[in-house]
Amino acid sequence: MTLGTSGKALWSGRFRKQLDPSAGRFSSSPEDALMFSHDVAGSIAHAMGLLRSGLLTESEASGMISGLRGIYSSYSARPEQLLRGEEDVHMAVEGRLTRINPDWGQKLHTGRSRNDQVALDMRLYAREAVVELIASLLEMQQALLSSARRHLTAVIPGYTHLQRAQQIYLSHHLLAHFRRFGRDVERLEQCFSRINVSPLGAGAIAGSSHPLLPSYTASLLGFDSPFSNSLDATTDRDFCLDAAYCASVVALHLSSLAEEIVLWSTSEFGYVTLPDTLSTGSSIMPHKKNPDIAELVRGKSGAIAGRLMSMEITEKGLPLGYARDLQEMKEPLFTSLSSTVEMVDLTAAMVREMVFNRDRMAENASDSMSSSVEIVDELVRRGHPFREAHRIVGEAVAAAVESGESLTDVIGREMPDLPVPGNARASVEARSSPGGSSAGSVRKQLSAASSELRSSRSWLRTAQRKCTAVSRLLQG
Amino acid sequence: MTLGTSGKALWSGRFRKQLDPSAGRFSSSPEDALMFSHDVAGSIAHAMGLLRSGLLTESEASGMISGLRGIYSSYSARPEQLLRGEEDVHMAVEGRLTRINPDWGQKLHTGRSRNDQVALDMRLYAREAVVELIASLLEMQQALLSSARRHLTAVIPGYTHLQRAQQIYLSHHLLAHFRRFGRDVERLEQCFSRINVSPLGAGAIAGSSHPLLPSYTASLLGFDSPFSNSLDATTDRDFCLDAAYCASVVALHLSSLAEEIVLWSTSEFGYVTLPDTLSTGSSIMPHKKNPDIAELVRGKSGAIAGRLMSMEITEKGLPLGYARDLQEMKEPLFTSLSSTVEMVDLTAAMVREMVFNRDRMAENASDSMSSSVEIVDELVRRGHPFREAHRIVGEAVAAAVESGESLTDVIGREMPDLPVPGNARASVEARSSPGGSSAGSVRKQLSAASSELRSSRSWLRTAQRKCTAVSRLLQG
Amino acid sequence: MTLGTSGKALWSGRFRKQLDPSAGRFSSSPEDALMFSHDVAGSIAHAMGLLRSGLLTESEASGMISGLRGIYSSYSARPEQLLRGEEDVHMAVEGRLTRINPDWGQKLHTGRSRNDQVALDMRLYAREAVVELIASLLEMQQALLSSARRHLTAVIPGYTHLQRAQQIYLSHHLLAHFRRFGRDVERLEQCFSRINVSPLGAGAIAGSSHPLLPSYTASLLGFDSPFSNSLDATTDRDFCLDAAYCASVVALHLSSLAEEIVLWSTSEFGYVTLPDTLSTGSSIMPHKKNPDIAELVRGKSGAIAGRLMSMEITEKGLPLGYARDLQEMKEPLFTSLSSTVEMVDLTAAMVREMVFNRDRMAENASDSMSSSVEIVDELVRRGHPFREAHRIVGEAVAAAVESGESLTDVIGREMPDLPVPGNARASVEARSSPGGSSAGSVRKQLSAASSELRSSRSWLRTAQRKCTAVSRLLQG
Amino acid sequence: MTLGTSGKALWSGRFRKQLDPSAGRFSSSPEDALMFSHDVAGSIAHAMGLLRSGLLTESEASGMISGLRGIYSSYSARPEQLLRGEEDVHMAVEGRLTRINPDWGQKLHTGRSRNDQVALDMRLYAREAVVELIASLLEMQQALLSSARRHLTAVIPGYTHLQRAQQIYLSHHLLAHFRRFGRDVERLEQCFSRINVSPLGAGAIAGSSHPLLPSYTASLLGFDSPFSNSLDATTDRDFCLDAAYCASVVALHLSSLAEEIVLWSTSEFGYVTLPDTLSTGSSIMPHKKNPDIAELVRGKSGAIAGRLMSMEITEKGLPLGYARDLQEMKEPLFTSLSSTVEMVDLTAAMVREMVFNRDRMAENASDSMSSSVEIVDELVRRGHPFREAHRIVGEAVAAAVESGESLTDVIGREMPDLPVPGNARASVEARSSPGGSSAGSVRKQLSAASSELRSSRSWLRTAQRKCTAVSRLLQG
Repeated sequence: MTLGTSGKALWSGRFRKQLDPSAGRFSSSPEDALMFSHDVAGSIAHAMGLLRSGLLTESEASGMISGLRGIYSSYSARPEQLLRGEEDVHMAVEGRLTRINPDWGQKLHTGRSRNDQVALDMRLYAREAVVELIASLLEMQQALLSSARRHLTAVIPGYTHLQRAQQIYLSHHLLAHFRRFGRDVERLEQCFSRINVSPLGAGAIAGSSHPLLPSYTASLLGFDSPFSNSLDATTDRDFCLDAAYCASVVALHLSSLAEEIVLWSTSEFGYVTLPDTLSTGSSIMPHKKNPDIAELVRGKSGAIAGRLMSMEITEKGLPLGYARDLQEMKEPLFTSLSSTVEMVDLTAAMVREMVFNRDRMAENASDSMSSSVEIVDELVRRGHPFREAHRIVGEAVAAAVESGESLTDVIGREMPDLPVPGNARASVEARSSPGGSSAGSVRKQLSAASSELRSSRSWLRTAQRKCTAVSRLLQG
Repeated sequence: MTLGTSGKALWSGRFRKQLDPSAGRFSSSPEDALMFSHDVAGSIAHAMGLLRSGLLTESEASGMISGLRGIYSSYSARPEQLLRGEEDVHMAVEGRLTRINPDWGQKLHTGRSRNDQVALDMRLYAREAVVELIASLLEMQQALLSSARRHLTAVIPGYTHLQRAQQIYLSHHLLAHFRRFGRDVERLEQCFSRINVSPLGAGAIAGSSHPLLPSYTASLLGFDSPFSNSLDATTDRDFCLDAAYCASVVALHLSSLAEEIVLWSTSEFGYVTLPDTLSTGSSIMPHKKNPDIAELVRGKSGAIAGRLMSMEITEKGLPLGYARDLQEMKEPLFTSLSSTVEMVDLTAAMVREMVFNRDRMAENASDSMSSSVEIVDELVRRGHPFREAHRIVGEAVAAAVESGESLTDVIGREMPDLPVPGNARASVEARSSPGGSSAGSVRKQLSAASSELRSSRSWLRTAQRKCTAVSRLLQG
Repeated sequence: MTLGTSGKALWSGRFRKQLDPSAGRFSSSPEDALMFSHDVAGSIAHAMGLLRSGLLTESEASGMISGLRGIYSSYSARPEQLLRGEEDVHMAVEGRLTRINPDWGQKLHTGRSRNDQVALDMRLYAREAVVELIASLLEMQQALLSSARRHLTAVIPGYTHLQRAQQIYLSHHLLAHFRRFGRDVERLEQCFSRINVSPLGAGAIAGSSHPLLPSYTASLLGFDSPFSNSLDATTDRDFCLDAAYCASVVALHLSSLAEEIVLWSTSEFGYVTLPDTLSTGSSIMPHKKNPDIAELVRGKSGAIAGRLMSMEITEKGLPLGYARDLQEMKEPLFTSLSSTVEMVDLTAAMVREMVFNRDRMAENASDSMSSSVEIVDELVRRGHPFREAHRIVGEAVAAAVESGESLTDVIGREMPDLPVPGNARASVEARSSPGGSSAGSVRKQLSAASSELRSSRSWLRTAQRKCTAVSRLLQG
Repeated sequence: MTLGTSGKALWSGRFRKQLDPSAGRFSSSPEDALMFSHDVAGSIAHAMGLLRSGLLTESEASGMISGLRGIYSSYSARPEQLLRGEEDVHMAVEGRLTRINPDWGQKLHTGRSRNDQVALDMRLYAREAVVELIASLLEMQQALLSSARRHLTAVIPGYTHLQRAQQIYLSHHLLAHFRRFGRDVERLEQCFSRINVSPLGAGAIAGSSHPLLPSYTASLLGFDSPFSNSLDATTDRDFCLDAAYCASVVALHLSSLAEEIVLWSTSEFGYVTLPDTLSTGSSIMPHKKNPDIAELVRGKSGAIAGRLMSMEITEKGLPLGYARDLQEMKEPLFTSLSSTVEMVDLTAAMVREMVFNRDRMAENASDSMSSSVEIVDELVRRGHPFREAHRIVGEAVAAAVESGESLTDVIGREMPDLPVPGNARASVEARSSPGGSSAGSVRKQLSAASSELRSSRSWLRTAQRKCTAVSRLLQG
């Protein structure tokens, strides 16, 4: 047996031929460039672990670490360059380190497999991206909260079935969106906890015969804990699904808000004007000003949901143990998260900058039909059973529709002594039950929203601190 | 204006014609029958709230409540009967109560809308179904744990890429599945918390001019808290997505285990024998015994994921305020959860009852190729850099493949003084790093698993107690 | 060896225990009831084939066939009753026939497997359902065509980005919908051809040692041809995907039209009034009249797309040869098709019955902004390069927006000698290029649409004739 | 009114501020670079149309066309460079032409909108990509056909439920895959016809007041016909869905074949050996040789299906008239098609190069259980009703399973005079019904397959000729 050194791929000892170039291109993943910093940081932590385990000497470890930091600083601006023609980011970094110093490079992979390594890199990437998404969502919540404060008692029509239902304050409407994004934040925080578990030390599927220290390397990398079962650690991609799902719900919430912006900026509704900076024109129709950004947010929600589906399909029916199919979790995960961040940021910009046409809203809200429930409620207070009161007012509505009169005029003629809301604002204020539309209720919501935001920001700072473990390792 | 009483639909005051029968069929939802008990319980809680608010007298409220309990006991066995020809469960119950006593029926809907009512019913249903799913998952985890204990040190081949990679214990493999279902349980517990918020009192979108008591009715119904924004409370269906997503991940985990059962029961693998009670035969081939149940579990995972997608599509681009589109969240939510429970239960039955062919597994694990990493590790301990050691062993592998010898024979001839694992078990035990394949690691995992199960069971009991609020209200 | 006759399941010869009841329930599929007539007709054709092959005597065959017809006429009204407690429709019919006459029943399955049988039944079902969907789509096209004729020159605003773009005729708009459904019809016709291939005679996977006559039975059943590869014939479910995909595109087209109905019936647009027969009211707000049917159509499109995804996931990664996973193609296929038919029918009803508010549409179309392109075109005709003309008019638009004047007023003041369209109609008529908005173009489209409808109807009659093979076999 | 020339975006006449840079990045689509050649060719055809319509002079048109050809030849190697900082490919080309000669550039967009232009470019792209996919599929079919010829009578186990069912020839198995891809080809040909309709001349939504010639430009570009309704022409994206759906079915078929390659190359099956050129090794386990390419094909099928879903979601609920959401159809369409081509090509390479272990297959096929149906058939020929024969053999199977004997031994002992298939091959040949497993049937299939391939290739050549219209226009 000759101990040849010709080897092309670093794992090619048993192979007689090299991988076909088209197969090489097919099996490479451009997303690897995005994990460059995480891969190097993971290797630094691994080297520190090998030192403490006694598998490297002090000088080997410090050489290896400074070599890795050198690679990072050389390529961090354009990692694609390091990856060109390489199988993946892991082999590229090991190969480069080997060219710097063969001994460092050849010892780096001791007690490690690409199976635990790629799981590690993906978790480090995903955790940062989730934190970034939470940060964007908190800006969005802040934008909604500020706008709600500005428009605390601006009356607008509230809709169900896109038909005018009951007048509310614009602030109440904006706070409903605030609540949605608040659930998104909670969901993502829980997702972060499931991501933040270190797989380093799990090896290919079964751990190692070397005395590895998974808890130590986990803490170096800012993880909350190490894995508990090596087979699960290398196969598990639940955290990818979780993050992609969370992104898909954010995207749905954005699609709802974007739909409203599209509707509200039509000539027919006329409730908002988008700034020129967030609108585009037509190549042929000089008069057009289009809400393209809102439409793109709405449209892009499709791709976010589709990517979740891609990932679920890819996972379906795979037995335990790493399979190459799992590579296909990277692109949808990474793109979902980064695209959703962009979508949140631009929608938040629209929330901040769009101008509300409060007169038009108030005018549309002034239709007394939207106070029909309060008239019913008054009849109830006068002793009519609810269903009978509903029918009485319903018939007044039918009469009004047919005669073209306002509902209050019909009521005033038929039941002259029944007190009815004098205007839209009176109806809004009448609904003073907890969580209802009155200014008192909205003020309570605003205060709860502020304090919720404060506590989310505090959580965020802690999570961001965990993420900085990567840059601390890279900078030494 | 005539105050007629002809009204067909209870809301038909303003309408001159009735709904077309085909439109009626199209817009009805058979899932309503599943929410019958929840709807009645919600109405009882609402009546108790109206009493405390002073909107009903003591005798009205107690009449109404006993009427509702009567309806429940008359129809709980076959709610379809009550619903026949009715618009939905809400109108059916109100209509029935009105026929029993017009005054009760006509006052029931005071301060309430179907918009908050249907959100309430769906949350009560979903919360129970999620709890049931968690209970099934804990049984599954118990089955895996018991099986892992039984097969603590049964050696099997561990696979990556479905190629034999490294030998492990069957227990380690089963515990990897245990970990997956453990994450499912955690995810569902968090989902439960987001479901368990009461929307009752939110009205159509804006609360009420009556002095409703949402906190009081929330606590009567076992909710953790009431809603905070009435518009959000009536529009929000995030809890449906959350539950359907959790179910989809459970289904993916099941598809993986089912795939293994299908593979392992082939003649080629021959690792397990399914009991006759969980297998079927062929209409034409008398010798066939097929793993149909495992295949159905795998196949049904498609519909669970597809239903999540259905729901995401339905939600996409809907503005705030209830829209009838939201009715289409019911079927996929209800079916996803109930179907997943069945899938978990039958897969757990297979886990409990399938017979492992430990000899066959051990034989397949005895191939010394699967100890290649431990040979590399030994070379590392002797001073070879890892990558060089990998190449040396790789070339020995190539030689073994070509000559047909075993890897240990080639190594023994080329490097006679290198200690190599004597057998598969020795390799498994060598990997004694934390979370690795050795019996010591597996024993620690077993003990952690037991304690995790205990705490999940305790959570489950608390959640079940909250759910019993419904039956307590129904029975008085 | 005892040749016992105890057997429970008809395939249970080699089994010592019966299927667990919960596994039985889990593995049954309620959709089987929908295939009852197809299953019986398939068996009759099979019996006729066996006779011609010499595998049955004349009297056996005629007994068997009359037995099958008897079963059909006994149970066609409520096939669930026959299926209660049975494994599937195939075994239920064979079992029933055996109880009528053991010899007939025991010989029915000669040379056949459930694998070719279920593929046959599904194709017979799918082909009928596809034909029914095409028939509904032709009614929809007819409704659009009639409405387009009625509103040939009713001016409405044409929108892009939901902003008013260029005025068009309502007929042009309705014909755009017509074109979409025309593509649906074409797609479904092509799908029909792929469905209409008989798998009968393919056996389990490999044909038969009996001299079967697949071409003969195919023609008895109205198929265009028999299968060509028995393994493919029993595994192929492409036709299910094709039909579900076609339904999903129909549903998307409906969701677009439904969205327009929802928008157009808002107070803000005010373009259409839905009849009371296709609207619903609110349980609490007596003034509401909601476009629930349109919303349900839009919402249900989610489940149609989701079911396609279910089916694709279920198929993913299955090796050749029947697998039980394929059972899960039935429910989504059947429900997609029947639900889409309902959706088409009700949307067509809305198209027929909604009342257009042509005054409101014309008023919104009268804004001279929507003639901006024709002003540009005029400048082009006067020698301005297009892009310069666009800029000139764009600046006039900006001036008009700021001053509140109409665009034609600004243009009239700045370029008094430039002829501009006198009104909306003039702009619509100016666009007389082929396929454009002028009445001349619309008339050509109407005539092409009529002739397309005629040829689709002729195709439909031929396809319906093929489908009647089933009822001819059932009635003898 | 000042006729300023400052204009930033070419449509910015009415705008006072420029688009925000982050909004610019968000709204740009990198896929535009892929449509560069199509966009330029479309503009050339448009210029030729304007000339014939009299809207350009001979010298203007020829200048414009040579300018466009110059831009094409300058940037065809790296269109990204032209697009940098530009809004989209359309504006980039017009802008560049304007810098070359303002008059040409400013007149290019006469009578055209980006709405018809982008639809045109996408159709030209999609049509080419579909043709490329068909070409790849025909190579795949050829590979399967050649392999089937090579292994015409190699006996293998045929599986159902992944259990050995009935022996067949490897050729029969490969031809089942051939049939699937044949349906794909048919589906894509039909899709091509729906793509190949020109939208040029539809303008923004309503055609033009200029005398455009859509039929003329359609024929210049190799289209089968021009659009018939301008509103439909600019909004329709059915062709994108159609192409993405076709790709998704191809991907499912590939996932099935890839699954078989993964299974068949396990140690347990051992049916095929992949070449080193299409396999990869492990970073840690020197003995591993993994079927990564097959796994990636299987895994990538998820993203293809997911992209179809993305597109369906994006389309859902959009009213007529171009909306910016439609931009989001590009990426999934383009990536689906190009990724599927790669998947087909690499899977075809595996089909061509994998080595079958025919001995192992034959050995596994020799189990007499797989001849159980032929034994049943023999009993039927001897007068036993089928179901009784099935039971008899089933009980023999049970006896054989329990005693460990072969089925033929048990039968031989119990029914010594019953002729049973002497070996696997005899059983395969016994099934000589049309489309069955016998060599005679396979030979007929081979001959039909050859002739089908020939006619597909002829179709392909015609379609390729239509596509070359683009390069003919670009080269003059």
